[in-house]
Amino acid sequence: MNTVDIITKKRDGISLTTEEIRFLVDGYTAGDIPDYQMAAFLMAVFFKGMDRGETVCLTECMRDSGDVVDLSGVKGIKVDKHSTGGVGDKTTLIVGPIASACGVPIAKMSGRGLGFTGGTVDKLESIPGFRTSMEESEFIDQVNTRGIAVIGQTGHIAPADKKIYALRDVTGTVENLSLITSSIMSKKLAAGSDAILLDVKCGRGAFMKTEEEAVQLAQLMVDIGNDSGKKTMAVISDMEQPLGRAVGNSLEVMEAIDVLKGQGPEDITQLSLELAGIMVYLSQVAGTEGLCMEDGIAKGREAAGQALADGRALQRFCSFVEGQGGDPKITEDPGLLPQATLSATVKAERDGFITSLDAMAIGIASQHTGAGRQRKEDAIDLSAGTVLNAKRGDKVCAGDVLCTLYGNDETKLKTASEEAAKAFAIDDNVPEERKLIKRIIG
Amino acid sequence: MNTVDIITKKRDGISLTTEEIRFLVDGYTAGDIPDYQMAAFLMAVFFKGMDRGETVCLTECMRDSGDVVDLSGVKGIKVDKHSTGGVGDKTTLIVGPIASACGVPIAKMSGRGLGFTGGTVDKLESIPGFRTSMEESEFIDQVNTRGIAVIGQTGHIAPADKKIYALRDVTGTVENLSLITSSIMSKKLAAGSDAILLDVKCGRGAFMKTEEEAVQLAQLMVDIGNDSGKKTMAVISDMEQPLGRAVGNSLEVMEAIDVLKGQGPEDITQLSLELAGIMVYLSQVAGTEGLCMEDGIAKGREAAGQALADGRALQRFCSFVEGQGGDPKITEDPGLLPQATLSATVKAERDGFITSLDAMAIGIASQHTGAGRQRKEDAIDLSAGTVLNAKRGDKVCAGDVLCTLYGNDETKLKTASEEAAKAFAIDDNVPEERKLIKRIIG
Repeated sequence: MNTVDIITKKRDGISLTTEEIRFLVDGYTAGDIPDYQMAAFLMAVFFKGMDRGETVCLTECMRDSGDVVDLSGVKGIKVDKHSTGGVGDKTTLIVGPIASACGVPIAKMSGRGLGFTGGTVDKLESIPGFRTSMEESEFIDQVNTRGIAVIGQTGHIAPADKKIYALRDVTGTVENLSLITSSIMSKKLAAGSDAILLDVKCGRGAFMKTEEEAVQLAQLMVDIGNDSGKKTMAVISDMEQPLGRAVGNSLEVMEAIDVLKGQGPEDITQLSLELAGIMVYLSQVAGTEGLCMEDGIAKGREAAGQALADGRALQRFCSFVEGQGGDPKITEDPGLLPQATLSATVKAERDGFITSLDAMAIGIASQHTGAGRQRKEDAIDLSAGTVLNAKRGDKVCAGDVLCTLYGNDETKLKTASEEAAKAFAIDDNVPEERKLIKRIIG
Repeated sequence: MNTVDIITKKRDGISLTTEEIRFLVDGYTAGDIPDYQMAAFLMAVFFKGMDRGETVCLTECMRDSGDVVDLSGVKGIKVDKHSTGGVGDKTTLIVGPIASACGVPIAKMSGRGLGFTGGTVDKLESIPGFRTSMEESEFIDQVNTRGIAVIGQTGHIAPADKKIYALRDVTGTVENLSLITSSIMSKKLAAGSDAILLDVKCGRGAFMKTEEEAVQLAQLMVDIGNDSGKKTMAVISDMEQPLGRAVGNSLEVMEAIDVLKGQGPEDITQLSLELAGIMVYLSQVAGTEGLCMEDGIAKGREAAGQALADGRALQRFCSFVEGQGGDPKITEDPGLLPQATLSATVKAERDGFITSLDAMAIGIASQHTGAGRQRKEDAIDLSAGTVLNAKRGDKVCAGDVLCTLYGNDETKLKTASEEAAKAFAIDDNVPEERKLIKRIIG
C-alpha cells in the first residue's frame, strides 16, 4: 500500500477501504507516514469528506491506537457524557452527581482543554485537596463504592487523535464533520463506558453556529457511536448566551453547588435535569428498564428531578468530592474555594431589554481575566472569571451592573471588562425567546 | 501574517494577495514554514485553484527564490524552448541548430529529468567528450561566437520550485494547472531568455491526455509568461505515438543527425521546422522583423526550411558540439556514439494496419532497456532504447519487425520487449489520421 495513492484516491472522491484507513492511521501514529502526507490527506478529506463507513473506521482506528479503558469491574451500564463545549458549561459537575444518585454508574475521564475557561478537570482542581489523577483500580473502586469518579484523561487514550488533531489545528483542517466526529468519538469509545450522551451546542458561543450544523454533527456522532457498538444519543442545546451565570473555574463550582441545592439559575438546572434524565434512561435504572425512548426519558427526568429535590444529588456530590480527597465543606462554605482579590463591573448605558448576550465575547473576556489557557503550557487563575448579573431578556436600567469580572491582575481585568461590555446589546423591545433544548437525537 | 490563515483563506476560495503568496514561498524556501503546512496549502490549491494574478505572483516568487541568469552579454533576442515532455522528443537537438543557423541566439539550460529516457543533457552526454557544464562566461562566449550553447541546469535556479515540486510529488498535488504552470515558468523566467516557445504535448504519451487539457495549460503558461514580461507562445503537438522512430539517448542523437541531414522521419522534421520557424519569428530575425504573427511564422518556417536544406543547420550542430568539447565526426560516423551489445525485436502477429502505437508503452519499454531513470540516483545506459520499424498507419505483414530494442542486459531486454509488444494494435482498416501540430497559441 502506498500513501500517495491513498491521498490521491481520497482527493478524487473515492471511498477508502478499512485497510487503507488503518494503514494511514497506524503509519502516521508510528511515525512512518510524515506530517506532510497526513496534512495533504486531511485537506483532501476537508473537500471530499468521508462516508459513514469510512468515519466509523477512522474512529475505531484512532480508538485502537492507544489504551481502551476496561470498566468491566464496574457493575451496571456505565454512561459517559460529552459536551462539544461552550461558555459557562459546568453540567458535568451537576449531571454526574444527579445521575449517580439515580443509580447510573459514572466513571468519567475529562479533559483540561484550551479555551475560555479550564476544562472539568481544572474546575474540580479548584476544590482544595481534590485529586484528578488516580490509579485505575482506585478509580473503579470509587465508582463501585461511591457511584461516581471523575479523573483526568491519560496520555494513552487515542494518541493517534492527539497527533492528528495537533496537525489539523495548524493546517486549516479542523472544520470537517467526519474529522470532528472521529476525534471526539475515538476518545469516548476508548473511555470504556457502555453508552454515550452527547450535548451538542449551537449558537454564537459554540463551534457549530446554527442548529442545522449541530444536528448534522450530532446525527453523525450518534451514528458512529451506535455503529461502534455503544448506545449513543445526543441533545442539541443553545449556546447563544452563556449557560448559567458563572464563567470561570471556582466560580462555576460555586454555581454547580447552587444548582445541586436547588438554588441555581433556571437554564443550567433545566439542561442538567434533561441530560441526567437521558443518562438514567441509557443506564436502564430507576424504573426506565424496558421503556420506549420517550417514556424512558420522561421517567428518567422524573427520577433526576427527585434526586435533586430531596438532596440526594448534593449528598452524592459531597461523597464524590470526599472520595477524591477534596473538602466537601465547600458546599457549606464557598469561601473555601479560591477567591479573586480584584473585581470590576460592566454597567448598562441605557434603559431597556437585553436583546443579545454574546457567549463568545463573554468567553473571550473570561479568558482575559486569566480563567482560560491560550497555550497548553499556560497557567490558569482558578479564581478568575465572569459572573453575569443580567441575562438575555432581562429588563435593565442605565447604571445597572450587567456583569462582574473577577481576577488578580488590574490590567487583565481592564481588558476583560472592555471585552465583556461588547457582549451586551440593549434595546426597547423584549427579544424573541430562544429554546434552550432544541432537539434530542437517538 | 499567519500561515494557517493563508491556508484557510485559500481553502475557502478567496484569492491571496501578493504579500501572502510571497510570505508562503519565501517562508517555505527558508525552512520557516514546515512541509505539512505547505502540503495542506497545495491540496487547497488543488481544489480551489489560483487565478491568473495569483499564478503570476507564485511564478515570480519562485523565480526570485534563486539566481536569475543574466544573458545581457548575448546580442539579440534570445529565445528559449520548452517541451512538456513525451516519448522520442529530441527536438531541442534539432531545433536549436536550425534556429541558430537562422540567427536566433540559443543560450539554453536543459534538464536531466526522470522518465522514459534521459533529458536533453543526458542525450548530449552520449556524444564523446561533450561537456554540459560550463562557467557562465564561457557559456555566453560560445553563444556569441558559435550562436548556440546548451548546458545543464544549475542548482540555484528556482530552488523554491525544486522544494515545492518534491513535496507535490509525494502529496498527490501534481495535477493542478496553476502549480504546473508556475513550476515550468519560474524556471523559464529565471533562465534569462527574452522570449519563450512552449511545446505542449497531448495524447497517451503526454501528461495532458486531451487536446483540450493541453490548450488550457498552454494558454495559462502563455498568459503567465507574457504577464511576467517575456513574449511567450505555444504549440500544441500530438504525443499519441512516439515522435520520430528512436527512443533513447545515443539513438535519439543519431536520429537528430539524420533529421539535420534531411533524412529523418517526416513527423519530427515537420515539428522541428515549425518550432524553429516560430523561434525565428520570436527572435525577429531572418526577415521576420515587424511582421504580423501569421506572416512572421510563415517567413520563419521558410528560413528554417532553407537552413535545413542547404546544410547550415547541420554545420551549426557540428560547431555547437565542437564548442562544448564533443566530437563532431559523429555526424559522419554514428558508430562513434555508444552502441548497445544486445538487441531484440517485436514482430507483427498478423497482417494489417497499425491502428495505434501507444507512446506510453514504448516509453515504459525504453525505460526497461535502461534508457531512463526511475530515481534521481539511477545510472542511465546511454546506448539503450527502442527503434520503431513501423509507425501508426503503416501496413505490416505477420512476422514483420515492429520495433527493435537495444541494451546490454538480456533480462531487461526481455521485459522491455514484452512491454513494447503491448504498444501495437493491428487491425484491418487504415486508422484515421491524427494531426501532429494541432494549434499555435500566442
